Amino acid sequence: MPAAAKTVFRPYRRRLVFTYTLSLTEFILELMYPFTIGLAINGFIAGEGLVSIVPLTAVWIAQSAVGAFYQMGAARMVARIYTDISGRLALRDRVSQDATSEVAARVTMVENVGYALADVVPMLIGGIVTIVGSTVMLFLFDLRAGIVALALVAIIAGLQWWFSVRAVDLNQKINTLRESQVSVVVSAIPARITDYLRALTRLKVKFKDVETGVWTMADVFALAAILVVLYLVAGDGAYNAGAIYSMVAYVMNLTDSLENAPILVDEGAHLYDVASRVAAEVEP
Amino acid sequence: MPAAAKTVFRPYRRRLVFTYTLSLTEFILELMYPFTIGLAINGFIAGEGLVSIVPLTAVWIAQSAVGAFYQMGAARMVARIYTDISGRLALRDRVSQDATSEVAARVTMVENVGYALADVVPMLIGGIVTIVGSTVMLFLFDLRAGIVALALVAIIAGLQWWFSVRAVDLNQKINTLRESQVSVVVSAIPARITDYLRALTRLKVKFKDVETGVWTMADVFALAAILVVLYLVAGDGAYNAGAIYSMVAYVMNLTDSLENAPILVDEGAHLYDVASRVAAEVEP
Repeated sequence: MPAAAKTVFRPYRRRLVFTYTLSLTEFILELMYPFTIGLAINGFIAGEGLVSIVPLTAVWIAQSAVGAFYQMGAARMVARIYTDISGRLALRDRVSQDATSEVAARVTMVENVGYALADVVPMLIGGIVTIVGSTVMLFLFDLRAGIVALALVAIIAGLQWWFSVRAVDLNQKINTLRESQVSVVVSAIPARITDYLRALTRLKVKFKDVETGVWTMADVFALAAILVVLYLVAGDGAYNAGAIYSMVAYVMNLTDSLENAPILVDEGAHLYDVASRVAAEVEP
Repeated sequence: MPAAAKTVFRPYRRRLVFTYTLSLTEFILELMYPFTIGLAINGFIAGEGLVSIVPLTAVWIAQSAVGAFYQMGAARMVARIYTDISGRLALRDRVSQDATSEVAARVTMVENVGYALADVVPMLIGGIVTIVGSTVMLFLFDLRAGIVALALVAIIAGLQWWFSVRAVDLNQKINTLRESQVSVVVSAIPARITDYLRALTRLKVKFKDVETGVWTMADVFALAAILVVLYLVAGDGAYNAGAIYSMVAYVMNLTDSLENAPILVDEGAHLYDVASRVAAEVEP
């Protein structure tokens, strides 16, 4: 977080910490679903009846309650931050005689910060809890399954790193081209417009092809990890139905979350950018 | 789809059908994961070795391949539509002497249509396939589990319907208030600005509270459905570990997808809106 953003958000520090602690708690409780479902399966198979569902029910209801508190708390925190910052922007700008449309645009920008604080931050927390937590849970069940999970995380992180380097390069080319968009449109020379649109779409198609290639590779590694875990949990008869369910559910959750990791990185970068710009407006 | 949008998209009809058939195929293959994972578990437990993983591997690799074809095909289709429509807009507007910034804004609008066609439509397809497909798979495994799934879908659809009626009402109030935003900011009377911001955030907090209430209720029904399915699959010892995994995974996928249903409805409405506006520009 840039220094300016720190200054802006300092007055809300305690509320932010409290709100995101709720969000973190919610995701940790959610992480317990596969484990407690496994307990319920084993309990029912052993004929233990209703006592089998106590852990799952407790975790689920706690998750719902914490989730509801988070939603209501976050809405109020965002409302407070929005009212404060928008008020300061709206009142300050009158003094400096800025254009009205600019002020209105900035008030909208503050709304984006609100969205980011209420929705993007918990998405980041959830992604990290699921990736780290699923790996830890697999380690707790079976050392070998944990090692497989860790290897998958490392391989996909490597692929993603390689892709992000290529993506920055291609995005720069796209942005450079896009800067000429208005002048090309204004020229109204059909050949220039057609050439411009072709060049732009060619770069975008190339971007998508590189991205697709990386994700297809990642998908093959994910399959390999799932197959190894399936063999480990069911191959030597060491685990009962409940443990099998839990471990397979953890490895599936892990592969799903890793697939969404690039979205998290994008949204995180966007959050940083929006927060910096609002901070620059409020504390120029 | 409005009539104007139909005219605009008619030339791409075959490509659209082909591309979305790929997307549909991808999601149907993904729907087979829990089932084929169940087969792998049972195969390994029965000591059948590598043959156990053939169905899962086949479905997974087919899904990856179809998914990659979809991504590359959709990128090219969107590029084609973007080039055609943007070209027509850019060339036409010169004749009618529109402002350059407006033309540039419309070209950006066409990009939004591209995003909607490549990302939103498959999201809608995926959501529907998962909700309908998981329910069907549960029926195929166990009639009683299927009935539980169907009841859950009906209850959550009812709750969601009730919420959407309330949401339209609250959104109207928010939009009416927002229309006065610019004039309030321009007035620069501190008391008016503060009152405006307070009224706006109060409505937003109320919206969030209603939404949270509905989702907490939905969450309790989802838990009830999961508990009943767990009892059905594990309670009377009728199913082996593989079938238990599959059925529990289907009911969990169903509850996850139902949770995302409101996002699908929002994005679908947004897609309709963007397509109508672009169509109105191209065929005035």
